[in-house]
Amino acid sequence: MQTLDHYREVFLGHLKSRINATEPKNLYEPMHYILGIGGKRLRPLLTLMTADIFGNRYEDALDAALAVEVFHNFSLVHDDIMDDAPLRRGRQTVHEKWDLNTGILSGDAMLIIAYQLFEYYEPAKFQKLAKLFSKTAIEVCEGQQYDVDFETRDTVSLDEYLKMITYKTAVLVAAAMKMGAIVADASCDEADAIYDFGLNLGIAFQLQDDYLDAFGDPATFGKQVGGDIIENKKTYLYLKTMASLSADEQVQLQHLFAIKPVDPTDKIEEVKAYFISSGADGATQEAIEMYTNKAFDALEKINISEDKKSFLRAFGNTLMKRTV
Amino acid sequence: MQTLDHYREVFLGHLKSRINATEPKNLYEPMHYILGIGGKRLRPLLTLMTADIFGNRYEDALDAALAVEVFHNFSLVHDDIMDDAPLRRGRQTVHEKWDLNTGILSGDAMLIIAYQLFEYYEPAKFQKLAKLFSKTAIEVCEGQQYDVDFETRDTVSLDEYLKMITYKTAVLVAAAMKMGAIVADASCDEADAIYDFGLNLGIAFQLQDDYLDAFGDPATFGKQVGGDIIENKKTYLYLKTMASLSADEQVQLQHLFAIKPVDPTDKIEEVKAYFISSGADGATQEAIEMYTNKAFDALEKINISEDKKSFLRAFGNTLMKRTV
Repeated sequence: MQTLDHYREVFLGHLKSRINATEPKNLYEPMHYILGIGGKRLRPLLTLMTADIFGNRYEDALDAALAVEVFHNFSLVHDDIMDDAPLRRGRQTVHEKWDLNTGILSGDAMLIIAYQLFEYYEPAKFQKLAKLFSKTAIEVCEGQQYDVDFETRDTVSLDEYLKMITYKTAVLVAAAMKMGAIVADASCDEADAIYDFGLNLGIAFQLQDDYLDAFGDPATFGKQVGGDIIENKKTYLYLKTMASLSADEQVQLQHLFAIKPVDPTDKIEEVKAYFISSGADGATQEAIEMYTNKAFDALEKINISEDKKSFLRAFGNTLMKRTV
Repeated sequence: MQTLDHYREVFLGHLKSRINATEPKNLYEPMHYILGIGGKRLRPLLTLMTADIFGNRYEDALDAALAVEVFHNFSLVHDDIMDDAPLRRGRQTVHEKWDLNTGILSGDAMLIIAYQLFEYYEPAKFQKLAKLFSKTAIEVCEGQQYDVDFETRDTVSLDEYLKMITYKTAVLVAAAMKMGAIVADASCDEADAIYDFGLNLGIAFQLQDDYLDAFGDPATFGKQVGGDIIENKKTYLYLKTMASLSADEQVQLQHLFAIKPVDPTDKIEEVKAYFISSGADGATQEAIEMYTNKAFDALEKINISEDKKSFLRAFGNTLMKRTV
């Protein structure tokens, strides 16, 4: 196994050498721009790491890892249009820096290029990877649609919410890892087990995101603390709170979630008081722990050295103990 | 061989049975809507026809044909957003009937579903089809980008224009046919020859579209005659005219192509007079004939019965003699 920094460095070198089309400029410049402004590259690193765990030749997984990253960035470009977001990772979004049409079209091209990256594998592996990729990609679209739908719905059940975040976020983490297993010729059972690990870790990660949005440390949390509350987002914390309130209190919280005051300070404090008094804060932490443990349980089904399992557990714990 | 109506009927049955996801409703309803409002289904029919020519089992090509049609409709949905078009085939466009976000996301999902349709083929064929599909899809995106770029450029060469229509329109016609050949296990040379046939026919078809837009019969032409002139589109007719005008006349035509009068009648007549006096009308007809002949020449490289070649020639002639 290598360090995460090592995987990242090799990955970034591969990204530069593979994604190099230039004409027409207005199609490819936005692609280089969004792929260049980075982020932690967690998903492709998971692909490389998993390939290393099962086969000791993580370099073979570079194209699959890149497909995952290109797809992820495609979804960011189109989601940013849908959310009308001006910024992504502190930089202008593609449709802001260029325009709507450029965002749509360069996003489309990225989705196609993600598929092309599987062409470097022989036919049987190509088909396995592309099939998993398509299944995942369509689930991500469905998750995004549920997310959009939930914004204008009065009630959303916890199960519906969990399905939405599973599709929108967790399946890509799971698929990123399974692709590493496929490239490394792991058995089907092992590939499925690592998918389960990634899926549950992905759900835990998103719930953690919901939790930190309200209770994170403003000094270290990357986004504005209370952002979800300002946007009236029906997060796990909110839905869990609603589920345990009396009818009267539900109406009060719904009222708070119908307004967007210029100064949101009081609103954020009031909503957080509900999250705490209802016990939703603790329940969310329990859910995070439960999904993290489910992820770790999945590891037990895999026939790899205890060292490698420790590596994956440590990675999971790092993700879950993050304050950013 | 079967009649075109027979292929179409079988194709439409297959479309209904294969594309049947329903939830989330806002993702899949627009997809069923746009795929349902139809058109001539020329591209998928070409896939079926070609498979029949090379293998006598056109039913095997139904999924490849459907992939082509789903992709074509994906590109229409996203192009209609980019062109801000209210109508498509006389019906509301997806982003008009729903909204921008629905147009983007259901379009994305259609692109993914197109890829999934190749999963019905065994790995080697799956890879061949998906590779050709990706190459074609990225070219279509590049063609669309060139088309967008040309709108705001002062000068466009005839070669640039031909490259743009080749990418935006002809490669999908060519790929639709080559996919039929791949499904039917035609040799590489034959698959390439049928690709050439489709490519040149596709270019001829688009030039014909440019020609009919100005000189078509208003009684039978499906769109508004003069539409390209109203929109100041740099078509083959326009570019060919510009290439043969004196500097003074070029400035006059450019002036005409900078305005959008409320009543375009006079503008259309003036521009058409330029098209005729410059000889661009005849030159465009010659170009159409030249590309049609190139298509027919490609047929000579293929080892199929004279009957089948006649069938393809008759199809080409029907397309080229259309007045609609």
